Amino acid sequence: MPLREACGVLGIASKSPILNLLQVGLRALQHRGQESAGITIFDKEHITQKGMGLVSEVLDDFGEEFTKGTIGIGHVRYSTAGGSSVKNAQPMTVSSATGELSIGHNGNISNQELLREEKENSGWAFMSDTDSEIIVRMIANYLSKNHTIAKSIQLAMEEMIGSYSIVLLHNDEVYAFRDPLGIKPLCIGQIKDGYVVASESSAIEIMGGNVIRDVEPGEILSLSPEKIISHSTTNTDNKAFCMFEYVYFARPDAKIDGVLTYSVRHQIGKKLWDEAPLDADIVVPVPDSGIACALGFSEASNIPYREGLIKNRYVHRSFIQPVNEQRKATISEKLNPIKEIVEGKKVVLVDDSIVRGNTSKRIVQSVRKAGAKEVHIRVGCPPIISPCFLGIDMPSRDEFIAPNRTTEEITKEIGADSVEYVTIGGLVESIGKDEHDLCLGCITEKYPLPIEGERQRGQATLEEFEI
Amino acid sequence: MPLREACGVLGIASKSPILNLLQVGLRALQHRGQESAGITIFDKEHITQKGMGLVSEVLDDFGEEFTKGTIGIGHVRYSTAGGSSVKNAQPMTVSSATGELSIGHNGNISNQELLREEKENSGWAFMSDTDSEIIVRMIANYLSKNHTIAKSIQLAMEEMIGSYSIVLLHNDEVYAFRDPLGIKPLCIGQIKDGYVVASESSAIEIMGGNVIRDVEPGEILSLSPEKIISHSTTNTDNKAFCMFEYVYFARPDAKIDGVLTYSVRHQIGKKLWDEAPLDADIVVPVPDSGIACALGFSEASNIPYREGLIKNRYVHRSFIQPVNEQRKATISEKLNPIKEIVEGKKVVLVDDSIVRGNTSKRIVQSVRKAGAKEVHIRVGCPPIISPCFLGIDMPSRDEFIAPNRTTEEITKEIGADSVEYVTIGGLVESIGKDEHDLCLGCITEKYPLPIEGERQRGQATLEEFEI
Amino acid sequence: MPLREACGVLGIASKSPILNLLQVGLRALQHRGQESAGITIFDKEHITQKGMGLVSEVLDDFGEEFTKGTIGIGHVRYSTAGGSSVKNAQPMTVSSATGELSIGHNGNISNQELLREEKENSGWAFMSDTDSEIIVRMIANYLSKNHTIAKSIQLAMEEMIGSYSIVLLHNDEVYAFRDPLGIKPLCIGQIKDGYVVASESSAIEIMGGNVIRDVEPGEILSLSPEKIISHSTTNTDNKAFCMFEYVYFARPDAKIDGVLTYSVRHQIGKKLWDEAPLDADIVVPVPDSGIACALGFSEASNIPYREGLIKNRYVHRSFIQPVNEQRKATISEKLNPIKEIVEGKKVVLVDDSIVRGNTSKRIVQSVRKAGAKEVHIRVGCPPIISPCFLGIDMPSRDEFIAPNRTTEEITKEIGADSVEYVTIGGLVESIGKDEHDLCLGCITEKYPLPIEGERQRGQATLEEFEI
Amino acid sequence: MPLREACGVLGIASKSPILNLLQVGLRALQHRGQESAGITIFDKEHITQKGMGLVSEVLDDFGEEFTKGTIGIGHVRYSTAGGSSVKNAQPMTVSSATGELSIGHNGNISNQELLREEKENSGWAFMSDTDSEIIVRMIANYLSKNHTIAKSIQLAMEEMIGSYSIVLLHNDEVYAFRDPLGIKPLCIGQIKDGYVVASESSAIEIMGGNVIRDVEPGEILSLSPEKIISHSTTNTDNKAFCMFEYVYFARPDAKIDGVLTYSVRHQIGKKLWDEAPLDADIVVPVPDSGIACALGFSEASNIPYREGLIKNRYVHRSFIQPVNEQRKATISEKLNPIKEIVEGKKVVLVDDSIVRGNTSKRIVQSVRKAGAKEVHIRVGCPPIISPCFLGIDMPSRDEFIAPNRTTEEITKEIGADSVEYVTIGGLVESIGKDEHDLCLGCITEKYPLPIEGERQRGQATLEEFEI
Repeated sequence: MPLREACGVLGIASKSPILNLLQVGLRALQHRGQESAGITIFDKEHITQKGMGLVSEVLDDFGEEFTKGTIGIGHVRYSTAGGSSVKNAQPMTVSSATGELSIGHNGNISNQELLREEKENSGWAFMSDTDSEIIVRMIANYLSKNHTIAKSIQLAMEEMIGSYSIVLLHNDEVYAFRDPLGIKPLCIGQIKDGYVVASESSAIEIMGGNVIRDVEPGEILSLSPEKIISHSTTNTDNKAFCMFEYVYFARPDAKIDGVLTYSVRHQIGKKLWDEAPLDADIVVPVPDSGIACALGFSEASNIPYREGLIKNRYVHRSFIQPVNEQRKATISEKLNPIKEIVEGKKVVLVDDSIVRGNTSKRIVQSVRKAGAKEVHIRVGCPPIISPCFLGIDMPSRDEFIAPNRTTEEITKEIGADSVEYVTIGGLVESIGKDEHDLCLGCITEKYPLPIEGERQRGQATLEEFEI
Repeated sequence: MPLREACGVLGIASKSPILNLLQVGLRALQHRGQESAGITIFDKEHITQKGMGLVSEVLDDFGEEFTKGTIGIGHVRYSTAGGSSVKNAQPMTVSSATGELSIGHNGNISNQELLREEKENSGWAFMSDTDSEIIVRMIANYLSKNHTIAKSIQLAMEEMIGSYSIVLLHNDEVYAFRDPLGIKPLCIGQIKDGYVVASESSAIEIMGGNVIRDVEPGEILSLSPEKIISHSTTNTDNKAFCMFEYVYFARPDAKIDGVLTYSVRHQIGKKLWDEAPLDADIVVPVPDSGIACALGFSEASNIPYREGLIKNRYVHRSFIQPVNEQRKATISEKLNPIKEIVEGKKVVLVDDSIVRGNTSKRIVQSVRKAGAKEVHIRVGCPPIISPCFLGIDMPSRDEFIAPNRTTEEITKEIGADSVEYVTIGGLVESIGKDEHDLCLGCITEKYPLPIEGERQRGQATLEEFEI
Repeated sequence: MPLREACGVLGIASKSPILNLLQVGLRALQHRGQESAGITIFDKEHITQKGMGLVSEVLDDFGEEFTKGTIGIGHVRYSTAGGSSVKNAQPMTVSSATGELSIGHNGNISNQELLREEKENSGWAFMSDTDSEIIVRMIANYLSKNHTIAKSIQLAMEEMIGSYSIVLLHNDEVYAFRDPLGIKPLCIGQIKDGYVVASESSAIEIMGGNVIRDVEPGEILSLSPEKIISHSTTNTDNKAFCMFEYVYFARPDAKIDGVLTYSVRHQIGKKLWDEAPLDADIVVPVPDSGIACALGFSEASNIPYREGLIKNRYVHRSFIQPVNEQRKATISEKLNPIKEIVEGKKVVLVDDSIVRGNTSKRIVQSVRKAGAKEVHIRVGCPPIISPCFLGIDMPSRDEFIAPNRTTEEITKEIGADSVEYVTIGGLVESIGKDEHDLCLGCITEKYPLPIEGERQRGQATLEEFEI
Repeated sequence: MPLREACGVLGIASKSPILNLLQVGLRALQHRGQESAGITIFDKEHITQKGMGLVSEVLDDFGEEFTKGTIGIGHVRYSTAGGSSVKNAQPMTVSSATGELSIGHNGNISNQELLREEKENSGWAFMSDTDSEIIVRMIANYLSKNHTIAKSIQLAMEEMIGSYSIVLLHNDEVYAFRDPLGIKPLCIGQIKDGYVVASESSAIEIMGGNVIRDVEPGEILSLSPEKIISHSTTNTDNKAFCMFEYVYFARPDAKIDGVLTYSVRHQIGKKLWDEAPLDADIVVPVPDSGIACALGFSEASNIPYREGLIKNRYVHRSFIQPVNEQRKATISEKLNPIKEIVEGKKVVLVDDSIVRGNTSKRIVQSVRKAGAKEVHIRVGCPPIISPCFLGIDMPSRDEFIAPNRTTEEITKEIGADSVEYVTIGGLVESIGKDEHDLCLGCITEKYPLPIEGERQRGQATLEEFEI
């Protein structure tokens, strides 16, 4: 099975040393991947430090050789269990005919198995399980045929189907490119002594820089300390911005393709009230991701907002463990209801999304045990019915609660008094983009491009697909 | 200099194995100390695992020998730089005439230097720098003179001046005792197969137990799987419950000596509005500790509550580093203002307390840079003018911003449009206890008991002090 | 059960920094203990680094604070399984009425259980399982009663029965003392900028120093960069130098109490031939400890010396593992016979000693399998029939092969064509000391002082024993 | 600069689990490389554990998944500083058109830079700096063109110039092949449940197996639990067995291409006496590598053999540190002269070889300081005047002592009374092979095949070279 990953990428071209900036930037992107972290800095050659763990663990202690480089890239990564290995950590470096190439990738190449087979059949051999290695080898191959880097990237893009926001270090040059549908975010900014590219705008701000703009879907850029050059842009009619970045994945302070995620979530909260009002005493968020949504709900409804569930910040590491059992075990530790707040009350719990439903079920139980009279759930994302194949880590389809269940059945299963999801229309409206410019695959089962092994579900096949 | 520590303690007597309960309970107390963690379990003898780091790091992987014990204690600890060493980690174990004794201590013994000198002069020798070692040796000494454990504890308490909430494992018996003024919290609860004692009530709930009551100030208890026995209680006229536990230190879901800290903080928010109303567009909390207060302020004032500062959860580990420089470096990373929310607005920032003022200054700067028209600060704790000598880790007096500055000077120093602190009266009223039953030393410079080296400031000396 | 330990100690008083000297000296003593290693250096206060592992692992990487001190002590340690814990690692430090005291101890206190019980009954409490803690606490106690250090040491020595060669750091002063029977070795030397005391003379030479003399049995010394002062010497009629140091334990280049161990071993080899000549083709040592003995045998007999067993240097770490099973598993890996050398030959295998007999049995098997016509064993130490209670780690009595077996039975058990041990007389003659000045406890069952629990075997009891 | 490495390889095909056998075998080969170690076992897929350090450190603790596989390979490695990185550790695995390929390589490919450049120019990209990656990719490439494995190996061998003894795991099949000149050793044996291939015969014996024969130069073999198949052998007129394996590198109990290294060394000792007799009192080996040679010298000369230099076994780890300064620092620690043995004597020191001369110089100094009257050096290898480019790690040419110095100048430089090397003729005779079947490059500057960058010294160029 191809790996599904969630990642964050970062590239910097500066006139002054960048080690600290890479650390700061990657810590700001840490929520995008807590499994491994790494950087590659150019100082005469590519020098890399990477490993399993948080940025604060893996990228905390550096040798002298890392302190002078002014050009480099960084990466944070989360993956499903199968790919949880240091050999898949990034940046990944190869030496090629034109020098060293290091890559950091966020996204998922849908046709990676076909590509891998095709390349192996032509005599290539791979050292990791990642699509990133396929990409960097394809680029190295085009480079050896005397193409420029930008052209080599473009030729590789023509072979790749999927989502990708990529930073590439070629000797001392930083390149960045984004898939033609713009599925994963990527934006550029200016810092004191140069330019940066990062998965989220807030990372640029936190590094002390100013956001310039999003990288265009299909665009290939290069960064130098003096300027950013846009080499080419592959146009498509529609885009496919990932709705889940707005709903849950990106930081609340990230502005993705022109839209602030916090505002989207706040707006969804209002929609939730408009679409399904009810009689209740307090609105309680499921922290942290349900907070903005719950505040919007409270504001629209005038029902008081109360923090009735206290989150333990010190168990968040358990998210790293990809085994389901371990997740279950710690939910009651992570969220403790305050009896004094919920006792005797009609409670509206607002959550960002429901995937398996296990967490929701346990929260409802504990809030009831703490004395709540009624527990209603409002969800800021429509029912998730199909996995993401394009860069968000999700469980397999049969672990979802939503497919093949009515809302009543879900309500019963979770044990709530009512469960209401925001509608797809309400969600799209809250984001404020055209429905055809969003990837809604996980809630509509209609993906913006063909997915290997999903043919039977009415997708175009990979062979038929044309960019 | 005697060590100042902030800690959390836990004791369990059960009929079934407790390793997992100790882990769960200590993770729920992790906010009380992130520097070291440890447990001692009785299984024929005292077996201990402890080390520098979080519970999830130090107490994650255990040998077979830890899995069967049903009686034990646990500890988390934070200390100032000087004492940051594994030799000071707890529980600390000694073998004595009557068997093994292990101790976990939250608090600070004010006369520890006098006691230490006195004991060394009578031929004792110490292996650590902690007051906990003095306490456990005193108890061992009384035990060798054929006193019962409860009597030995009582005799040791008669020698000790200071704050202490202590769990003590003597062979297979768990004892707990609290200083006569009740400075540090301690409460007892019932779990499925036995009884527990913990620094905060929420830890008991998260362990699946029911809170019974707080340990009385001056009370000595023993726990068995079948019952709790109260051996004696040393009465004093007034108590001295630490106000800072309510304002900042304890979890929002902790009920300390009958009062929920979340409610206190929410109430303080309302007081802040009542005491100093103003014209503003939005109320923004300094997360996480200012949130309850900000919500109270918003509710009282009807000024909309907005999360305009986004906290990066992945840099919290920097709190462990006791060096000031390192703290400064990461503040801008920790809190990022959302431009779209604060731009052009009159902003009220609500924080739980101001110690040095560095953080506040930097936040004001960043919120202004993000476009705020005005930045007003409201603080949920009166000006801190004197260090805590009784169990809360604070910087030294000359690092505080408040002493020798008027509110106007502080406003100017921080760069805000206005700064208002809750009054001492307002604070006391929000807590809902008699002023004479609170320790307000850090805001009044009047401590409930004599402090070594603080004589010149009008305190009773240690020699004059009588319990 | 009291711990039995084998250890090496080192003390230095210099005018220049000693960190490197401590490392060099402890590596030269590493064979005396591979389980834990540690140093304590005085630089305003006692600073210690210690841990489980070899010197090259534990004492390889130091903070800046260790680089300036010019006074300090070091220790390497091996112990039986029960005491294998970092809490028993040395040096061990206490703070006392007169300052800090750190101790490094080689030997074993026979009355440690009585002393421990007595001290606990008078109110003391212990943090480790070692006799070293008892010793250092006794000295601290006498110091608090205004005795000088030398007097305090002497008073403690009057309470202690057993073997001990000890280095003691009291603030910035190094003291050394040796038990009245001189059981364990200890010698003093001069280095470039000061003086040293070490378990073996070769350590002093390897540190670039000159050996001055052995510490006298019962002598108390202090070292300063300028001189050595001998404070007092407790005389006894006879000494009890450990014969096993000569036979096996000390380095071949160590001169202990005037006698070079290599010469003793070479001489024993000659005795073995004299006492039991035979017809053979080649003499093969069991490396490394049988080499000197085998060379002596070859020289006396004119039978050619051949290295027919090749030792793998990379499995020596297995000696650290105190479990018998693990030892067995690696013997065939450790010693590989060379077929070309032993095939068709009458082979004399020379070993330093036989304890359990397992190793010998396996070696005979493998040498036979490689084609030897006959395999005769010659042993440089008389049959070991009783455990050492005075500082050499040995298995318990019932694991020995020699008790209750005739030489013929042993020969059969091991599977050799003949087995001959050097006689006690031959051993004593080879060492060249009076039999009454040697501890021969393990081969005669007669110990030079009473051993706890050995009363039934005809020993004086501890109570009857007078120094 | 291409990496120069010294390594050991091991391959096993068995019917029962092999994890323990791999550990035992690699420990027996540990002397061939102490920098990194690794194994790859087939169990449905290739699973690898490798890292920097000794076998006992890196390959000590395994997950369950390693315990069932019955087919696998192993590797130990030492390299010069430049390549000291875990990314160069072996086995190295790639996935190819026909499945997984893992390689373990001992030797050095002389034309690796040309090959690398050629392959990069055709679009390949590399992840490590090793020639092993080039080899495995070439084989993978031929496999994708529908060649059999044996044929693919043969085609790759036609492109490679240099020394190589290689184990290759292709899915569940073990292959082994050796360069046409047989420069590095490799032999095969039978174990209880299958077959093995290993760098040295003694590893097979220690694993409990029987040695069958050496792999022929140029031979390609495959191993299964049932049999060994020889696929093809590339013949050349002469061989080029590395003389340094006999003189120093291999274990004394290794039989390489029919000759026992211990016998060669013993014989060289006799030659040294025959070629340059002298008047002396004792023969002292430089342990450990000079021992066999010194025994031969003593036997031929009738001058008594004495172990006058004692080696500290616990500093051997310093050999891992590739920096010259560190080597110097520990020589005096490693070898301590026994004064009682050398004092007043005419001493013959016998060493296996002299490279830089630093060690010899220091030993002469220390033996003189210990009182030797005369110090003569005899060396079991002719003067080393040119680096090894074929698999033995040596310093660069300008660090050697021998080039451009007469024996008199070397004697003076080292400070000895005389220095005599065995002659090339004497060496060849001691090995017992035809001079044209030995690689004597390091002592004659005439290599058996062209070396990149050595053209100016009269070598055939790589282009001219024909296998």
